[in-house]
Amino acid sequence: MAEQRIITLTTDFGLRDYFVGAMKGVIYNIYSNVNIVDISHNIRAHDVFEAAITLKNSYKYFPERTIHIVVVDPGVGGLRRPLLVYTENQYFIGPDNGVFTPLVQKEEDVMVIDITADHYFLKDVSYTFHGRDIFAPIAAYLAKGVDLRSFGDPIEDFIKIDLPKPKAPDKNTLEGQIIYADNFGNLVSNISSNHFQTFLNNSTNKTFKIKIGTTEIGKVSKFYEELTPGSIGALFGSTDHLEFSLFKESAEKKLGIKPKERVLINFS
Amino acid sequence: MAEQRIITLTTDFGLRDYFVGAMKGVIYNIYSNVNIVDISHNIRAHDVFEAAITLKNSYKYFPERTIHIVVVDPGVGGLRRPLLVYTENQYFIGPDNGVFTPLVQKEEDVMVIDITADHYFLKDVSYTFHGRDIFAPIAAYLAKGVDLRSFGDPIEDFIKIDLPKPKAPDKNTLEGQIIYADNFGNLVSNISSNHFQTFLNNSTNKTFKIKIGTTEIGKVSKFYEELTPGSIGALFGSTDHLEFSLFKESAEKKLGIKPKERVLINFS
Amino acid sequence: MAEQRIITLTTDFGLRDYFVGAMKGVIYNIYSNVNIVDISHNIRAHDVFEAAITLKNSYKYFPERTIHIVVVDPGVGGLRRPLLVYTENQYFIGPDNGVFTPLVQKEEDVMVIDITADHYFLKDVSYTFHGRDIFAPIAAYLAKGVDLRSFGDPIEDFIKIDLPKPKAPDKNTLEGQIIYADNFGNLVSNISSNHFQTFLNNSTNKTFKIKIGTTEIGKVSKFYEELTPGSIGALFGSTDHLEFSLFKESAEKKLGIKPKERVLINFS
Repeated sequence: MAEQRIITLTTDFGLRDYFVGAMKGVIYNIYSNVNIVDISHNIRAHDVFEAAITLKNSYKYFPERTIHIVVVDPGVGGLRRPLLVYTENQYFIGPDNGVFTPLVQKEEDVMVIDITADHYFLKDVSYTFHGRDIFAPIAAYLAKGVDLRSFGDPIEDFIKIDLPKPKAPDKNTLEGQIIYADNFGNLVSNISSNHFQTFLNNSTNKTFKIKIGTTEIGKVSKFYEELTPGSIGALFGSTDHLEFSLFKESAEKKLGIKPKERVLINFS
Repeated sequence: MAEQRIITLTTDFGLRDYFVGAMKGVIYNIYSNVNIVDISHNIRAHDVFEAAITLKNSYKYFPERTIHIVVVDPGVGGLRRPLLVYTENQYFIGPDNGVFTPLVQKEEDVMVIDITADHYFLKDVSYTFHGRDIFAPIAAYLAKGVDLRSFGDPIEDFIKIDLPKPKAPDKNTLEGQIIYADNFGNLVSNISSNHFQTFLNNSTNKTFKIKIGTTEIGKVSKFYEELTPGSIGALFGSTDHLEFSLFKESAEKKLGIKPKERVLINFS
Repeated sequence: MAEQRIITLTTDFGLRDYFVGAMKGVIYNIYSNVNIVDISHNIRAHDVFEAAITLKNSYKYFPERTIHIVVVDPGVGGLRRPLLVYTENQYFIGPDNGVFTPLVQKEEDVMVIDITADHYFLKDVSYTFHGRDIFAPIAAYLAKGVDLRSFGDPIEDFIKIDLPKPKAPDKNTLEGQIIYADNFGNLVSNISSNHFQTFLNNSTNKTFKIKIGTTEIGKVSKFYEELTPGSIGALFGSTDHLEFSLFKESAEKKLGIKPKERVLINFS
């Protein structure tokens, strides 16, 4: 019996239009033995960075051989190439606009293919909806067993985007930024617990002050219920990054802090 | 082994309440070997026209024998009949309120059945939720293999709604209207590329001016990235209809243009 | 061949973040032969009561042996216990915060297990996302066939929340409250048709007046289309509870009535 495969979808299509349904129809029409899993269709319109971190935070929980389609694609119909990325025994399909940057950073054990085998596309490819006309059928044929290398040749000059990394202005200071606000209004930074722990271990008194906006925080909590209601707290969230939260309230809304806000930690 | 079938759902139920979950439970309880695919649950409340075009834009991508349930049903519990439509080797289930108009226009090779076999309904049918009590179980029994004709008798007097068609005020003018604004704020008209091309071919100089609101556009672009940022452009979108767009912005929000706005094309 | 199982999800995670996708990945990674059904991910943030009634309204439509995961969990990472409830031949997994109150009220034929078998959890359980790290893997192992009792010991001291019940201030008066406003703006009360019918049967003239806010309603309609456009009406909705509605409009928005509003019925 044919192998059952998982195909995930991450897009900025929203959940009102016919777009997502059409993609699923195309996939099932080519290969029916798939589970299609929606990661998110509410990526902010055209926000390649948000799609990149959503993908990064979710793909690793899926079984080997999962196929991930990512379509945040303001350049659709133009010169940007359709890509097929193979790494960590998973497959990723989407436009060449940097959305796969977190996956291809290691460079070893990554194969990036420029998809050129247009006989796998739908007939009459539109200029505005490659999710339906190119990415969905490629994913379905891959699920059906078509070999990776049949879709095109490997390339090296794919596009990468800037993923903001924490800096160390001096040996006692760690400077990061908010990169994301989640559904609960938690403000997630780019400072991982590893970063933080390394600086803390090297500090003299093992103390620190975290500054965000006009607020100063002197400790890291373990979980949300520990936070003093009404006061912003810091903790390491589900992606192991330092985040800022209010208990049962939205820190984003109440504090007016947005992605790109600076986070400064002084260790002493 | 029992055949695996696809059942799609298009409703105005939204994604907060228990409604969609209950329908899926009812289906799986009757026949488990189905893939249930959400087309949209965010059709504007009671908007039969929007449901009709969403269905029209998506059903053709699905495999043969797919069953589509459409529940935008302000008349639920009243005299309107439940229908089962068979055409193009696909099945469509929903209320008799015109939502299937785009499918039944050809009349040939369309069978429309008034569903009367109430032994297939849930016991104790409510007056407010036929999606759960009638349409879901009918779809599930159909998937399970019950014959089309077991659900009721064919009828001819089903309801049709007005689908606005482009007009030709004179032989050099094509007049249409905006019928839909998508998630990205693209304004989709009822003018297809066929309409447009026929008029263009018959024109003397093969030039044209498109008027929408206070704007005049002299060319049709191929894809979004070709558009001048900040300026509205026209292109043929993923349903092959003329649409109006702003690059990486919402034309709907920025121009305040809404469905029903007139689109006028003068060919010369 | 391994049995196919259904796992449903009810959360307040929203549909933008990576949360729901990660949970599904974890489940498929442990046991692939499942249908994962989203009941709702738009439960109001931290609203345990709303999650409880959404679950109550949907679970009974699912087949026997369905596994329901419910994650509205403001106490995540703290002392609250993870629970596995078995009743009516279905399984329920979530935090011990009262979300299962409607299920455990009968007490007979209910088993509530305190999940302690942490070898079934993901490695490195986070303090903020037990949906991914605890509830999803427990559901997947249960689906795979691990015995109920392997996950922990039965307890009796689980948490229950207050579910508001209608009162009878005197023998001719029934007093309830609005408990929920649905996507269409229908205002659903805690008065069931049984409650209502009992009082009506015992009344002298078989007449009644329903008061909500400043409005008085003298009859119960059967379905929405029967309502006079623009005037609020009362009817028994899909959960067999008295609800207040405007035809094709939102009663919630137009009347400004919210959950907890008092509903008074005088029988005479």
